[in-house]
Amino acid sequence: KELLRIPSISTLPKHQHDVERAAAWLAGDMRRAGLPSVEIIPTAWHPVVYGEWLGAGDDAPTVLVYGHYDVQPVDPLNEWKAGPFEAVVRGDDLFARGASDMKGQVHAFLKALEAMLKHGELEVNVKVLVEGEEEIGSPSLGPFIDAHRDLLKCDVVLNADSGILKPDLPSLIYGLRGLAYFELWVHTASQDLHSGTFGGTIHNPAQALCELIAGMHDADGRITLPGFYDRVRPLSAEERAELARLPHNDADWLKLTGAPVRWCEKGYTTVERFGARPTLEVNGLYSGFIGEGSKTVLPARAMAKISMRLVPDQDHIEVEQQLRAYLGARAPAGVRWELKTLAGGPAALVERDSVYMRAAVAALEATWGVRPVFERAGGSVPIVSLLQKKLGVDSILMGFGMRDDNIHGPNEKQHLPNYYRGIEAYIRFFGNLAE
Amino acid sequence: KELLRIPSISTLPKHQHDVERAAAWLAGDMRRAGLPSVEIIPTAWHPVVYGEWLGAGDDAPTVLVYGHYDVQPVDPLNEWKAGPFEAVVRGDDLFARGASDMKGQVHAFLKALEAMLKHGELEVNVKVLVEGEEEIGSPSLGPFIDAHRDLLKCDVVLNADSGILKPDLPSLIYGLRGLAYFELWVHTASQDLHSGTFGGTIHNPAQALCELIAGMHDADGRITLPGFYDRVRPLSAEERAELARLPHNDADWLKLTGAPVRWCEKGYTTVERFGARPTLEVNGLYSGFIGEGSKTVLPARAMAKISMRLVPDQDHIEVEQQLRAYLGARAPAGVRWELKTLAGGPAALVERDSVYMRAAVAALEATWGVRPVFERAGGSVPIVSLLQKKLGVDSILMGFGMRDDNIHGPNEKQHLPNYYRGIEAYIRFFGNLAE
Repeated sequence: KELLRIPSISTLPKHQHDVERAAAWLAGDMRRAGLPSVEIIPTAWHPVVYGEWLGAGDDAPTVLVYGHYDVQPVDPLNEWKAGPFEAVVRGDDLFARGASDMKGQVHAFLKALEAMLKHGELEVNVKVLVEGEEEIGSPSLGPFIDAHRDLLKCDVVLNADSGILKPDLPSLIYGLRGLAYFELWVHTASQDLHSGTFGGTIHNPAQALCELIAGMHDADGRITLPGFYDRVRPLSAEERAELARLPHNDADWLKLTGAPVRWCEKGYTTVERFGARPTLEVNGLYSGFIGEGSKTVLPARAMAKISMRLVPDQDHIEVEQQLRAYLGARAPAGVRWELKTLAGGPAALVERDSVYMRAAVAALEATWGVRPVFERAGGSVPIVSLLQKKLGVDSILMGFGMRDDNIHGPNEKQHLPNYYRGIEAYIRFFGNLAE
Repeated sequence: KELLRIPSISTLPKHQHDVERAAAWLAGDMRRAGLPSVEIIPTAWHPVVYGEWLGAGDDAPTVLVYGHYDVQPVDPLNEWKAGPFEAVVRGDDLFARGASDMKGQVHAFLKALEAMLKHGELEVNVKVLVEGEEEIGSPSLGPFIDAHRDLLKCDVVLNADSGILKPDLPSLIYGLRGLAYFELWVHTASQDLHSGTFGGTIHNPAQALCELIAGMHDADGRITLPGFYDRVRPLSAEERAELARLPHNDADWLKLTGAPVRWCEKGYTTVERFGARPTLEVNGLYSGFIGEGSKTVLPARAMAKISMRLVPDQDHIEVEQQLRAYLGARAPAGVRWELKTLAGGPAALVERDSVYMRAAVAALEATWGVRPVFERAGGSVPIVSLLQKKLGVDSILMGFGMRDDNIHGPNEKQHLPNYYRGIEAYIRFFGNLAE
């Protein structure tokens, strides 16, 4: 709760100090867990907290544990039942921004580590890296890894920024989507004008932006950016069959979201759609007057935050070029547009039959008494592909968040039974690796 | 400047007290001008300030002078060179929200009245009505007129909420457009969700809103709401010829707005487009995360402020039905929409050859030394059609704002030479009426 009460929102400059406070708190907790060497290492933006215990010796495997201590913004604030940084327990759930994504998972791992170290039962080497920029696309992490290649040398990564399907159904994610996140501005006049005097004689940037966004999907829900699907690896019949075995029910899905009907790319199931197909979403829209009441203004500019989830083998740099090509071809003559890239990273697929994955499967099965299922997740954990590329190691995604935890939305929560079982599962995972 | 320094923004509840302060200041100024009887009369929302001088006797004509003391909001605040309520003079201009729209015009008239009363030169009866709700569609004015029909009895209205084309070219507006202003909300999920987990499986309300807005115009810039043009009175060849005589230059227009190219309904000139044809504008857009940086959110809702400028004989209630019909037919199954009406009023056309209009023409010509031109304005002054309907009187639109005064935008200003000439012109107008 102490950690959850620090509003470490990495994207907002006014929370810079809170981000630093969260790093300091975490470094203290890592020392309390028994890590002999803990450092707060500065980067170009938010610091990395790093600690290690190499007492298992050179012959034992080395696991690099990854997590992040930064959190998403909290708007819309008025939809939270308690303050986002109050950290209150109601029933089996602990509510706070970051409870599930992912301070809860980081803390569960540190508790597991503390138990193993205090009882002298840790038989693999452990390196712990917790960054403060995950929610803004981890811009400093690539340079950090390059600068600390020897320090981070390991056999496998345990990435705790993950979840399971249901409280009674453990699961392991082997696929993650990439991300390309943009801010698009459309400009017309040099300043806001009176809509009665000037409306209808020059282009309205909000209307032009809407036209551009409306054209980004066709009637079948396919994305129209030129070449967008060229590198998308088709789903094999085998993988489609496997994904179809995942426990999923469209009616439950709609109940969970509150949406009246499904909206999907034609020809794909919901599970395929969120895990194995690329998407394009509007994350934010702004133009003109949005306060209470009416203002008869012809806005001078309009903005959209637009992001794409990418699948293998799409490249976020190529996707940016595709978006620029689309805008260049479609933007009307009366507007000027401007595109800023806010985040980008490729998708990742992890080997399902490695010694590490088997250790994870066994740990979850022993803890839950149920064999875990494999899934491809819709979200993006850029660090997975980054570490694969830079250190040549796979990541085991083992965390205990759930889909209804409201991560990134109001009333985020951590389901506490998952937190406690998570501690057990981490201990078993390390035990299995030592065998 | 004292009056301009009171932020009487009628649409924002937090400025309620300022609106009342502005009413009180104005009542004081009307007494200072020499009106023997001045009252602040409450309405359902913001008060009306009313004063009269009936010393010219029963045989003299009675003029009802109309103005408003409320102002528009000031966003975007950071684009103002000085604070919007500082009221600073730079060169020939006085900068403040409301300087041109329309505290400056109200004050010019009161100065004219003061001069005539102090010198015993007023030979017509004068009633002055200044309301506080013009910028929010004058919701209380209809009931107020109904309740004070005898008090407001008059031969003609002088409406000071108007302007001229250029500092050296006086003009008189004989046509005004109506207004229909709406707030449209599109809902999908019950709350904001993670765009990686849920994106692409249920509809995105921002995308759905963009599709709806994009469909409201066709490729020729015509509005697609069913039946929207049915009641639009076609422009006669005579009126088109007259409007073509107005001094207008598209290159200057673009320079004034800063827009790169014109955007117009096909088949109409810019002058016809803003004065004599209906338009549909997006005045505001909002959805999801609009702060600095990136947030991977799938918004639960999206909002647009949308307004139409109407021409004779369109009806704002019918237009609302047309918009609802459009939304009902076009909104996708995955969304729920909600429409609020924020303002509405019909268009107005005023007789160009009345005794009152001739008095105005002569007053402007004597003051400027140039014969004024007639124009149809793009804006809406609902009071003109309201008074025509409720009291059976025409309005003479005589004010001295200009198109580049930035009304409703940042850095609104009043051109001070217009203000001083305006005082002279009002005195001459009243003199002409007495002859």
